[in-house]
Amino acid sequence: MDEPLSIVLFSGTDDRLTSASVFAAGSAVLGRPVRILLQYWGLEAFRADRIGRARGLAADADAEGGPMLAAALEAGQINWADTLRQSKELGEVEIHACSQSMDILKLEQADLDPLVDGVEGIAGFLAAAGDGQLLFI
Amino acid sequence: MDEPLSIVLFSGTDDRLTSASVFAAGSAVLGRPVRILLQYWGLEAFRADRIGRARGLAADADAEGGPMLAAALEAGQINWADTLRQSKELGEVEIHACSQSMDILKLEQADLDPLVDGVEGIAGFLAAAGDGQLLFI
Amino acid sequence: MDEPLSIVLFSGTDDRLTSASVFAAGSAVLGRPVRILLQYWGLEAFRADRIGRARGLAADADAEGGPMLAAALEAGQINWADTLRQSKELGEVEIHACSQSMDILKLEQADLDPLVDGVEGIAGFLAAAGDGQLLFI
Repeated sequence: MDEPLSIVLFSGTDDRLTSASVFAAGSAVLGRPVRILLQYWGLEAFRADRIGRARGLAADADAEGGPMLAAALEAGQINWADTLRQSKELGEVEIHACSQSMDILKLEQADLDPLVDGVEGIAGFLAAAGDGQLLFI
Repeated sequence: MDEPLSIVLFSGTDDRLTSASVFAAGSAVLGRPVRILLQYWGLEAFRADRIGRARGLAADADAEGGPMLAAALEAGQINWADTLRQSKELGEVEIHACSQSMDILKLEQADLDPLVDGVEGIAGFLAAAGDGQLLFI
Repeated sequence: MDEPLSIVLFSGTDDRLTSASVFAAGSAVLGRPVRILLQYWGLEAFRADRIGRARGLAADADAEGGPMLAAALEAGQINWADTLRQSKELGEVEIHACSQSMDILKLEQADLDPLVDGVEGIAGFLAAAGDGQLLFI
């Protein structure tokens, strides 16, 4: 359990971002390191000029619970960026942008929210994951 | 291989629910324990009054195979709830509702299908996962 | 780290196919075996007569970065099938079709691109995964 929990954050919808943030928080509570790699839509969500805005829900949102989850997100009961900030205070949580995604989206680190600690390639991320678990969200 | 296979069931579409159920069955066949955590749309799908109804397919459904998979699901060739019930008879399969999701969707355990064994927090789920593999579906 | 990285490729959109291919490549670069299981939409994407065509992006594509990623994919800067072919030259990358998915989509191996090495059941895939990490994409 001293291996990190590694999360590939591929998605950029509020429900999946929230899910990733609560897994980071839960792992931090257990004293276990967390490493997050931001890919494609997940990276887009961490742009400094857009991190606060609503991003919709995943395609599963047409279930009847959709409005209720959407309302909870809007009412600020859940704010994934805040949950990640708190997780960083609670434990060892590192967030890296995927270097290939940075190239595709023509981003530089200055374009990203300070939550992002740096840029990392896929092989580096996998090597740092060691034998720890991976989640693709 | 005596560590459990732990599945975060986030999605509530029939194709992803079916995928989760066949992974639970496959793991049960191997004699390996399975622990499923129901989050957001996945939890919504286990409401006692709605578990049997059609829930659509994920956004990938516009591929040409979509109608064929949809037809197989409708024809009852695949029923994810039945597959989970059978998996519980075959092996050790535990299904828990995520406590945060229960709060957001204002659900109590009495609202859920008997397939659900109880309620669990994220940290408890991660601790019980031990060194076993995680799937986020 | 000599356990394989096992990827369940469930999705059939270009962004998720590309993500799977770069994880396969990154793992091959590290000298670590990769085992991919094609399920549902992921299997559909490997049909010999359709492997080259555009398949759209996931539901997260309405983010502002969507057009940029789509343009990169279209411009051939990223081609997931090519990345998988190169990964097979770089290292040990095996791709299997899920047998249940083959039945549902009424496919035989001759219908699939030569990238696909064979057909495998879920239990066989899980057994071969050993203690290695799993990604569900």
